[in-house]
Amino acid sequence: MKEYLEDINKAFESKVRLGIMSMLMVNDEVDFNTFKELLGLTDGNLASHIKALEGLNYIEVKKQFVERKPKTTYSKTKTGEKAFHEHLQALEAFLKNNL
Amino acid sequence: MKEYLEDINKAFESKVRLGIMSMLMVNDEVDFNTFKELLGLTDGNLASHIKALEGLNYIEVKKQFVERKPKTTYSKTKTGEKAFHEHLQALEAFLKNNL
Repeated sequence: MKEYLEDINKAFESKVRLGIMSMLMVNDEVDFNTFKELLGLTDGNLASHIKALEGLNYIEVKKQFVERKPKTTYSKTKTGEKAFHEHLQALEAFLKNNL
Repeated sequence: MKEYLEDINKAFESKVRLGIMSMLMVNDEVDFNTFKELLGLTDGNLASHIKALEGLNYIEVKKQFVERKPKTTYSKTKTGEKAFHEHLQALEAFLKNNL
């Protein structure tokens, strides 16, 4: 496969995952409902993408109590940040060859 | 979902499909084995992606005889070309917001 296609990371192929990573690049922490609203997803669909990205150690979960209520937030890991940047660069190279 | 994410076409999310469409943009016709070799795929995997793109009327198949041997080639449709361009523009917009 052409080099710039090989560098496209299958973990980020879906636009939901692009959206999740994109939001975590500009926000240190994002909670479940914010993802849900901005990406327009059902609980189940969002949860499965989050689980997959967590399994790859690209994002991590933080559970805490805020005003005695449980709050779950997500943030990018160093590994996730690096992998996402590499993916964006691969997409950029792909576009350069196709536009 | 953010506008530029909405315009990302789910039909082109996989890099195999990006590769197929990309090859059809620069070649009027591509045969099965050329796709297979350049994209490094098994018959089954390639066939299923081709079938999906055909089902969407993004590519079309042509069966002919060349020197009395059957030859199957694929080409883009007008619909496919337009959809792929829109997808590339959506990816470009996404990158502009993330790089």
